Amino acid sequence: MNVVLIGSGNVATHLGLALNKFYNILQVYSPQLKHAQCLANQLDAQAIDQLYDLKRADVYIMAVKDSVIAEVAQQLAAYIQHSLLLHTSGSVDMDVLQAASLNYGVLYPLQTFSIQKAINFQSIPLLLESSNPQVGKTLDDIAKHLSPLIYHYSSAQRRSLHLGAVIACNFSNYLYSVAEQYLTTQGVEFDLLKPLIVETAHKVSQHRPFDVQTGPAVRGDLAVLEKHSEMLAQQPDLQQLYRQLSDAIIDLHVKK
Amino acid sequence: MNVVLIGSGNVATHLGLALNKFYNILQVYSPQLKHAQCLANQLDAQAIDQLYDLKRADVYIMAVKDSVIAEVAQQLAAYIQHSLLLHTSGSVDMDVLQAASLNYGVLYPLQTFSIQKAINFQSIPLLLESSNPQVGKTLDDIAKHLSPLIYHYSSAQRRSLHLGAVIACNFSNYLYSVAEQYLTTQGVEFDLLKPLIVETAHKVSQHRPFDVQTGPAVRGDLAVLEKHSEMLAQQPDLQQLYRQLSDAIIDLHVKK
Repeated sequence: MNVVLIGSGNVATHLGLALNKFYNILQVYSPQLKHAQCLANQLDAQAIDQLYDLKRADVYIMAVKDSVIAEVAQQLAAYIQHSLLLHTSGSVDMDVLQAASLNYGVLYPLQTFSIQKAINFQSIPLLLESSNPQVGKTLDDIAKHLSPLIYHYSSAQRRSLHLGAVIACNFSNYLYSVAEQYLTTQGVEFDLLKPLIVETAHKVSQHRPFDVQTGPAVRGDLAVLEKHSEMLAQQPDLQQLYRQLSDAIIDLHVKK
Repeated sequence: MNVVLIGSGNVATHLGLALNKFYNILQVYSPQLKHAQCLANQLDAQAIDQLYDLKRADVYIMAVKDSVIAEVAQQLAAYIQHSLLLHTSGSVDMDVLQAASLNYGVLYPLQTFSIQKAINFQSIPLLLESSNPQVGKTLDDIAKHLSPLIYHYSSAQRRSLHLGAVIACNFSNYLYSVAEQYLTTQGVEFDLLKPLIVETAHKVSQHRPFDVQTGPAVRGDLAVLEKHSEMLAQQPDLQQLYRQLSDAIIDLHVKK
């Protein structure tokens, strides 16, 4: 089966490297030829920056910014005929692809990708959605090469999961940033927190997060909450965030 | 060296089990005898619920709620003479112990303890503080049995670190709870997020959290932010939290 990648960012790179073992990746498209070239070199594929240079392939995998998926799909309509078109986004409905082909679907790897870090797809849940049963079969075949964790989710469910991921992961990472920034101003090493951050995340694999909540707010330890709030007097934004999240924990645990 | 544990909760339990290999743990005190008994049985120690039953020991380790440390220290004054008294708290100043003994210090294990989960102390940073050099030497000896990650931190630094831990860990765990609650209302499995949560935490071991921030806010993807906000219209508290943390990420990354 021949595959073309539309996009050359984090998701395209990790998917391309993983799929390259099983399929013939013909081309990598990016509006910036240099970016396409960088990934194409790793995949022994052709780099292109014009959609009219697209070759005929069995599957076109779009891994582009959410905000341009619908637009790129419309541009692809002229080139891909009835080939299978996939997008890889958690938050975009599958149906935006129907402008481009009769055969379309979604392959959403639920993971946070960094270009620098190797990814083991075997531990990544893949959420699949397809426009018809034949697409479903092809998509299952592709996905099985990547991971045993395969889920058939609707666009609405996928969107909910993506929102959950933003809350649990993107927002947590923001809190890590805030903690780092604060500790740096205090001359204390953020590195010390790293084992604790990892342990906190691991706990959730074994327990409901509600059941393993720790800290002064859930203990109702008003003296510590007050002390912390005082310590943040010079950083009013952070003080407000501290108070608000502490109040939210108290609401969730103590009042209910 | 003879040790007495004042307290029988998570920290007392994990410290007691780890120290029991190197020291003779004489007694476990808790105002609730049943709780003391449960830990004392595991340590082959005596359970007591009255301070006047305290035996003479070389070291008394207090692992009690932050809010009662000062009070318990004062009560101990009558019993422990010049023995070494330690507390194990991140947020309480060392000097509250001077009411009880000339020799006092802090042994703060920077970790989140759950009674259910075995702890490998070797990966836990220990923050030490001591009232005089002799205490410092004894404390170093005790700590070296537990972990190679030993730091000498002042009360002020320890308090900052504890505040950082609340932000990075307790608040993150709260966000995990919020995500779980939201996904449950949407009929989507929270389990799917677990690999992503762990990966997000692991990334911080390798990279500055600022550098690996992902999600719609840092991408400036207003369409997704708006969509997510709409999806939360029925949960105004969560909607507000979503908007606020997204705005904070935008402030941190885009505006600066």
